[in-house]
Amino acid sequence: MTEDILIRNARPMGAAPVDLLIRGGRFSAAGGDRPAREIDAAGFIALPGLVEAHTHLDKTLIGMDWFENRVGPTRDHRILADRNAKRELGIDARRQSARQILQTLKLGVLHIRSHVDVDTEIGIANIEGVLETREALRDLVDVQIVAFPQSGMLPREGTFELMDEAMKAGADIVGGIDPATIERDPVRHLDAIFSLAERHGKPIDIHLHELGELGAFCLELIIERTRALSMQGKVMVSHGYCLGMLDAARQKALIEALAAERIAVMTVGSPSAPALPLRLMRQSGLVVASGSDGIQGTWEPWGNGDMLERAKYLAQRNGMTNDADLAETMRICTFGGAEGIGLARYGFAEGDHGDLVLVPASTLAEAVALTPHKRTVIRRGQVVVRDGEPATNLPDIA
Amino acid sequence: MTEDILIRNARPMGAAPVDLLIRGGRFSAAGGDRPAREIDAAGFIALPGLVEAHTHLDKTLIGMDWFENRVGPTRDHRILADRNAKRELGIDARRQSARQILQTLKLGVLHIRSHVDVDTEIGIANIEGVLETREALRDLVDVQIVAFPQSGMLPREGTFELMDEAMKAGADIVGGIDPATIERDPVRHLDAIFSLAERHGKPIDIHLHELGELGAFCLELIIERTRALSMQGKVMVSHGYCLGMLDAARQKALIEALAAERIAVMTVGSPSAPALPLRLMRQSGLVVASGSDGIQGTWEPWGNGDMLERAKYLAQRNGMTNDADLAETMRICTFGGAEGIGLARYGFAEGDHGDLVLVPASTLAEAVALTPHKRTVIRRGQVVVRDGEPATNLPDIA
Repeated sequence: MTEDILIRNARPMGAAPVDLLIRGGRFSAAGGDRPAREIDAAGFIALPGLVEAHTHLDKTLIGMDWFENRVGPTRDHRILADRNAKRELGIDARRQSARQILQTLKLGVLHIRSHVDVDTEIGIANIEGVLETREALRDLVDVQIVAFPQSGMLPREGTFELMDEAMKAGADIVGGIDPATIERDPVRHLDAIFSLAERHGKPIDIHLHELGELGAFCLELIIERTRALSMQGKVMVSHGYCLGMLDAARQKALIEALAAERIAVMTVGSPSAPALPLRLMRQSGLVVASGSDGIQGTWEPWGNGDMLERAKYLAQRNGMTNDADLAETMRICTFGGAEGIGLARYGFAEGDHGDLVLVPASTLAEAVALTPHKRTVIRRGQVVVRDGEPATNLPDIA
Repeated sequence: MTEDILIRNARPMGAAPVDLLIRGGRFSAAGGDRPAREIDAAGFIALPGLVEAHTHLDKTLIGMDWFENRVGPTRDHRILADRNAKRELGIDARRQSARQILQTLKLGVLHIRSHVDVDTEIGIANIEGVLETREALRDLVDVQIVAFPQSGMLPREGTFELMDEAMKAGADIVGGIDPATIERDPVRHLDAIFSLAERHGKPIDIHLHELGELGAFCLELIIERTRALSMQGKVMVSHGYCLGMLDAARQKALIEALAAERIAVMTVGSPSAPALPLRLMRQSGLVVASGSDGIQGTWEPWGNGDMLERAKYLAQRNGMTNDADLAETMRICTFGGAEGIGLARYGFAEGDHGDLVLVPASTLAEAVALTPHKRTVIRRGQVVVRDGEPATNLPDIA
């Protein structure tokens, strides 16, 4: 698994060509015996593993029959349809999560943070299913599991206890959900999830769709709790649409307050949701990550989990067409995501994990704009995908 | 070229399977000798040729070196960069238009309306280049050419005369451009292009990016002239962002007025421009078409010209996820486009042109959501693309 490998003419993040050496699964200084194994990366740019910072591995219908979506227009309709689908379609969280992971591995996604449903109907079965897949695929992909109360926590008695159980079972992150519009009690919801995070010594990731000033108020509550509990660098806000709906002064102040507490923001660049001010966010030092959200599920029928395509969506939603801007969206889908979900030893420096995605393109912008699929993926020094196809026998668990 | 062919188990627009017979290049009633040639379309849905109602064939950089986009943020910056690029990059309108047409043919695009630049630097050279390509590829694809004053008409003396020359050379449609913000004189601009259209007996297609009430005023001027000159069914408004920026009553009234004069609206569903109210537009009887706009050019670096992907963008921009809505966006990219650009004998009825795109999907919604690429394309009874690859030797002109 940890064969040494020399990657010649590698262009890290599109920079000038260098030779990169991976020894024992980590980038290493030059020197010593020349490895038997070499790859010529001329014609490619080299990215670190793409970071999927927000998806729902347990809910994809990849490889299942087409789901005819007749779901009503509100979020309540969607949550109900989603819960019903688990039962009626027999969505197997173990199998489905494996399908999505193996599909996106071919595209270079090596790090995934997945929200996984916890509710009073399925209990922690989906958590257990994704844990099983994570274990089976641990040599290929890093998976972080968020215990996510999709159907609401406060209004559905017993959910909090199930969240606690999920954390004990191996979930890595405490998930939160719209503290006002779903939970109906922002303070009590946030206090509950922060206390759970404190109890388990784990980070927090909150789905925050609340709009306008309601969303801004919830952000303030999150900022206050992050500061009070010294959870800087341990909190992510997912979506945060309200940041795209405020006047410029309010927007800037909130973004700076989030940055000061090192609260990361995850945005998918949805074409129909408010556009977040990406340039301002990055310039303010805010950590910005991105993700695919659900792929081919009952919420949204599309999606392939490609984080280069996601970088394109981010640029398109923000009306960005310049090469420099496209390179920024690529950074969001790599280094931004890595910082947001707290990855260690991510990058190309000596001692960093020997992960690499070679994309046939001449610049970062070209890779974002054209999203070529014939990528070569190296994980801890092992070539796992070559020209878009598995280079080794991938586990047959999907 | 007009070999008879029987398509078994065809599912026109996703409907129940039927056998479709093409004789002499047109759909025909059953009966007569069974054709020697047959295709089994089980597992596919059958679409008529996809309709690209708005692109810029002369400006794509497909197959050329990557263009580093450092263009400034305003439309004036972009128009200037675009004009400079023609000269500096040596964009050959004949070759580039052929490249785009052959690329999108593989995806089932059989009808294209292309705006082609006319200006005082290049004169009508791009019109001539695209005319040449159209002639070379006439057996494969229908191409309509709009003489388009990209750099402005009124402010650049001599452009109107070049437009007239372009129409004489073979352009099919008179193009207009923002009558206020670019042309600085809405009435004079519209009077000029309507007079040109009248002189040549040709339709009109106007790029209208004007925002809010300014755009609404321009729409009123267009409606008035369409009515006065009895040009119902001969006018298309491209983009029409203002329709997504008005209060509900004003929006509805304008949409109904457009529908009453049978003025079509083309929208690309841009993620960063105002979203047009697609449901209301269709319910009001407005003809709605769609297109890719520029593909891989100096304006926008991305795009593949796939009209199924375009249907997906339309749905995504409108927050649509239901199967019924996705089917509607597919109709926009087929029958809507056909009506908008005035195609005759488009569809599956007896006597209609024998064109067919087979997409591996179970429903229209699935085709829109997943945009599978292994399509089979039949043009006038001839299989020109099979499973995404050319089935015949395509002309080597790109």
